Amino acid sequence: MKKLIIDVDTGVDDAMALLHCIGQSKAGTEVLAITCVNGNVGLDRVLRNTLRTLQYADKSNIPVYRGAVKPLIPWKTEGATHFHGNDGLGDAKWDTPDDISLIQSEHAVHALIRLVKEHPGEITLVTLAPLTNIALALQLDETFSSNLKEVMIMGGNIEGKGNVSLSAEFNFHVDPEAAAIVLQDLKCPVTMVTWETCIHSTISEEDYEKLLLIQTPRAEFFRKISDNRQHLISSKKKLNPGFRSCDWFAAMVLFDESLCLEYISAHASVELQGRFTRGQMVVDWLGRWSDMPNVKIAMRLDRARLLTTMRDFLSQE
Amino acid sequence: MKKLIIDVDTGVDDAMALLHCIGQSKAGTEVLAITCVNGNVGLDRVLRNTLRTLQYADKSNIPVYRGAVKPLIPWKTEGATHFHGNDGLGDAKWDTPDDISLIQSEHAVHALIRLVKEHPGEITLVTLAPLTNIALALQLDETFSSNLKEVMIMGGNIEGKGNVSLSAEFNFHVDPEAAAIVLQDLKCPVTMVTWETCIHSTISEEDYEKLLLIQTPRAEFFRKISDNRQHLISSKKKLNPGFRSCDWFAAMVLFDESLCLEYISAHASVELQGRFTRGQMVVDWLGRWSDMPNVKIAMRLDRARLLTTMRDFLSQE
Amino acid sequence: MKKLIIDVDTGVDDAMALLHCIGQSKAGTEVLAITCVNGNVGLDRVLRNTLRTLQYADKSNIPVYRGAVKPLIPWKTEGATHFHGNDGLGDAKWDTPDDISLIQSEHAVHALIRLVKEHPGEITLVTLAPLTNIALALQLDETFSSNLKEVMIMGGNIEGKGNVSLSAEFNFHVDPEAAAIVLQDLKCPVTMVTWETCIHSTISEEDYEKLLLIQTPRAEFFRKISDNRQHLISSKKKLNPGFRSCDWFAAMVLFDESLCLEYISAHASVELQGRFTRGQMVVDWLGRWSDMPNVKIAMRLDRARLLTTMRDFLSQE
Amino acid sequence: MKKLIIDVDTGVDDAMALLHCIGQSKAGTEVLAITCVNGNVGLDRVLRNTLRTLQYADKSNIPVYRGAVKPLIPWKTEGATHFHGNDGLGDAKWDTPDDISLIQSEHAVHALIRLVKEHPGEITLVTLAPLTNIALALQLDETFSSNLKEVMIMGGNIEGKGNVSLSAEFNFHVDPEAAAIVLQDLKCPVTMVTWETCIHSTISEEDYEKLLLIQTPRAEFFRKISDNRQHLISSKKKLNPGFRSCDWFAAMVLFDESLCLEYISAHASVELQGRFTRGQMVVDWLGRWSDMPNVKIAMRLDRARLLTTMRDFLSQE
Ligand SMILES: [Ca+2]
Ligand SMILES: [Ca+2]
Ligand SMILES: [Ca+2]
Ligand SMILES: [Ca+2]
Repeated sequence: MKKLIIDVDTGVDDAMALLHCIGQSKAGTEVLAITCVNGNVGLDRVLRNTLRTLQYADKSNIPVYRGAVKPLIPWKTEGATHFHGNDGLGDAKWDTPDDISLIQSEHAVHALIRLVKEHPGEITLVTLAPLTNIALALQLDETFSSNLKEVMIMGGNIEGKGNVSLSAEFNFHVDPEAAAIVLQDLKCPVTMVTWETCIHSTISEEDYEKLLLIQTPRAEFFRKISDNRQHLISSKKKLNPGFRSCDWFAAMVLFDESLCLEYISAHASVELQGRFTRGQMVVDWLGRWSDMPNVKIAMRLDRARLLTTMRDFLSQE
Repeated sequence: MKKLIIDVDTGVDDAMALLHCIGQSKAGTEVLAITCVNGNVGLDRVLRNTLRTLQYADKSNIPVYRGAVKPLIPWKTEGATHFHGNDGLGDAKWDTPDDISLIQSEHAVHALIRLVKEHPGEITLVTLAPLTNIALALQLDETFSSNLKEVMIMGGNIEGKGNVSLSAEFNFHVDPEAAAIVLQDLKCPVTMVTWETCIHSTISEEDYEKLLLIQTPRAEFFRKISDNRQHLISSKKKLNPGFRSCDWFAAMVLFDESLCLEYISAHASVELQGRFTRGQMVVDWLGRWSDMPNVKIAMRLDRARLLTTMRDFLSQE
Repeated sequence: MKKLIIDVDTGVDDAMALLHCIGQSKAGTEVLAITCVNGNVGLDRVLRNTLRTLQYADKSNIPVYRGAVKPLIPWKTEGATHFHGNDGLGDAKWDTPDDISLIQSEHAVHALIRLVKEHPGEITLVTLAPLTNIALALQLDETFSSNLKEVMIMGGNIEGKGNVSLSAEFNFHVDPEAAAIVLQDLKCPVTMVTWETCIHSTISEEDYEKLLLIQTPRAEFFRKISDNRQHLISSKKKLNPGFRSCDWFAAMVLFDESLCLEYISAHASVELQGRFTRGQMVVDWLGRWSDMPNVKIAMRLDRARLLTTMRDFLSQE
Repeated sequence: MKKLIIDVDTGVDDAMALLHCIGQSKAGTEVLAITCVNGNVGLDRVLRNTLRTLQYADKSNIPVYRGAVKPLIPWKTEGATHFHGNDGLGDAKWDTPDDISLIQSEHAVHALIRLVKEHPGEITLVTLAPLTNIALALQLDETFSSNLKEVMIMGGNIEGKGNVSLSAEFNFHVDPEAAAIVLQDLKCPVTMVTWETCIHSTISEEDYEKLLLIQTPRAEFFRKISDNRQHLISSKKKLNPGFRSCDWFAAMVLFDESLCLEYISAHASVELQGRFTRGQMVVDWLGRWSDMPNVKIAMRLDRARLLTTMRDFLSQE
């Protein structure tokens, strides 16, 4: 039984993660709020993609909040539209227009602060996006961190392998200062699913294609928003082989931590200065510089069970 | 049949690597010069340790050259005496004094330049130390790189895991600018055995101890210079478990490339700016930012065959 | 006629600047709020020093707000207590206790956002401290900047001369990221009084001592909070000679821009990366890299008139 | 009576500085060597421009050496051909071809080391270019610095004002690591004429034009190589007003230190890390971080006497 706030920059994998979290309601999970932030696409598209996903799931009653429009210290970051489509959600066609009147007037950061104050010790914060909103909440409210129950972060590195720059992961690279603030100031239990965690847990192209064949509305939605992927692959851009859905992977681990085969607790920081490494997460693996772990890192996931979980989820009507 | 110049900061593993290289003379390998550089210990100790190793091997006729006394841009780097002993060679007792008159008067950098000019296309350069000497040779002689046959480098990272700082390997961290110059300017084939290559190829403590039981003069020398290791382990410093001898590993791969189970060719650079990552090697694994590989990286070695090679080497009289 | 919000880290010069601003009420100036931030001393002392100053001025009705307790990305910064006294206000003895119940419950950043929204185009923001509060307001409210009338900033450099590090000014050095956000995002007219502006406008020790001889309650307050200065000078710490009161200077220029002999409009940025220069302001003097000035910089002040203004101010009963 | 080695990247102002130094031979000054380095233009053009200048002065017997073809760590630096002409020497027409056989075969760095060893305590090193050669000499020979009599450096900053980047001076910006090595390792007396020193000592356009009217062969040479300047000014590039000839100014100060109105001795370093400030010189003006001055900085020159010196020099037949 979890009370969730989910911070997103809805792209394809955020959308699947949202559905996955929402889909756990029978198990008593409640999504209190979805907070949006600039990331994969601009904030306005993130909001629309989030509303679109909730509409599909018939959960438009979950409040959606508008957060930060840009990183603390913006540098040029290669966008993620090549991956998620120009609209961030596969450039699919939809029958109904977005109802942007559903967006709350309260700022996402204020909603985060208020909700955590209202439910001290109860809220699980799930961050699937650049950490700007979370950094601002931490900066504005000293009690924010200690009132959280736990945090699941999709982001960061464990092997200095970049997906958006030579050595940094997208969510951290877009707002490295925010990531640094979050790693430094969060005092509750923090679990991380990093980029390399996902790389080490890649689904084969064959298994992925089988997922696309499932005939349920949910699988249909997945297929629709994933359509850009085929263009991407045929474009011959240099990509890691196989399929992974980082935000969805993180959501699955959140509800079943046994999906992760190995966790390591350690102290992690973010490089803010490097010419090549800005935004890279650095970890003190042996505890030589700090004996105070601040994160529990999911090192690699059980691919077979991950695949089963995805298949089961998509097969449910 | 190789003509070698070996650049060292003789420590324990450099000493074993030197012996290993010298020991290939029956196969036609010739060591033309050993060039010394500040690193594990100060330059004067490096020179003495090198002479000591040659004396043990009865090869004091190999010319030893004095190179750079400090890195291009010195920052404080944690020394390596905790690892190699205060004298860099296990603080062992020796019966004979060092004969420092054997050190050549020519500067190591000049010797490098001269020898490579004298043997164009023939020399294999083996670097087991901070790359100061090599960077200076590249800087002073534009033909240096193209006249080399090949280079084997022990150093750098493939996973952003540090041994001397959060994310950098010792040889690169001591002189990051030199490492950057070398990766950027070397135009001949370059093979690298990195820190994580060695970590992934660790010998178990049990297997290591069996090596110490071998009864030959060579094994006796190895035992003597490795004596500090036991102190280190019992000091409860936070260390990676198991045994690895990075320079020796690199030397073994040089003479038997099949000891490496996987090579990846890629473009590698060195971070010079980072607060945490200064000296870290960063690799463009997918060739997204550069399609011109400059190094061939040994990813992991065959531990069983590595152990056999070490055992065979130590068992030879 | 100005509506002011003053952002302070009350030390000695903030206190005098506050008095100076409050003292312009006859000319129709209204101080809507004082927002406090960590800086010269910790936030709690800043709040007390601000209350203390208002109490002395019999203006405890001006609302005081609690802002950021720490910079966005905290690095070790040499404190300013050697300059302002351990309590930040000269370690003077006061007859009455601080009434901390006067501190507003609303967060300073929210008050900034709310007040600027309530008075669009009317508010003059005066920043005499690290810019954390202002950066957070800009980050949380996209309309904040365009709704401001003008901003006066005490901070930054024009000649790369540091007072707290080799090349950075205190307010910028304490929170360089905040300063960078502010210079980048403020779109209203911005005037800056920098550290070197103050250095070039230094009052002689003799003239300063005459200020201390004035016999009014105001001068008595000034004398009391300035008492630490004598200890500082006799401590033989290496200091720039003469007297300057940076925040007070900025307040005087705000109300009489003719006190500044030369203004230059240019594009200014903040160095966030440097080893020696982190927090230094850098200016594109000739407009070679940007032809869009974002600040009007007061280059040097009229010392004689500055002194007269101070003397007149202290002499008023 | 001085024995000079002059390190140049001959552009227009290096050429005048060379003539000025050579012109002091009656006073007993001897130019032992001219060492060339990549800078204003590529090394080959630097060599030709140097030979050309010596040929004009009928001093082709002074040995010219080929030094470093590129900086230690090359970053993109805006060239200086807009200033010095495409050939670095005003794109003038010359009657005689360059005789490149006059270039010595010994490398400039070796010549520097050899000559300083041959004349211990006697040599004045004048550096008018990026400091690559000097850094290499210092790195290769520990005795180099202590055997020098004195060094005059044209380069660096005193006010964080850039001419080639936001805050760095050309010679330092082209090879910041070399500049850092030089400031750190030189142990003999060092005088610096910085970019801002020259800015503060600017000659008016009117006075400059009078220099061009002088009718001597020397003035004719000056006019010829300065011809590009008029194009530059009419190109409306954003430039500091007035005329300055940095290398020539440094040469004049070398032979008449009273031309400088104020010297300050302090500890200076070079920023290697900054995003905006890489290559900027930073000075500890009050000796707060170091009480060991490593340079004597010429703060501003006597313009009137500078102009007279130039006029007198150009008027001599
Ligand atoms: Ca996401
Ligand atoms: Ca070594
Ligand atoms: Ca202040
Ligand atoms: Ca020059």
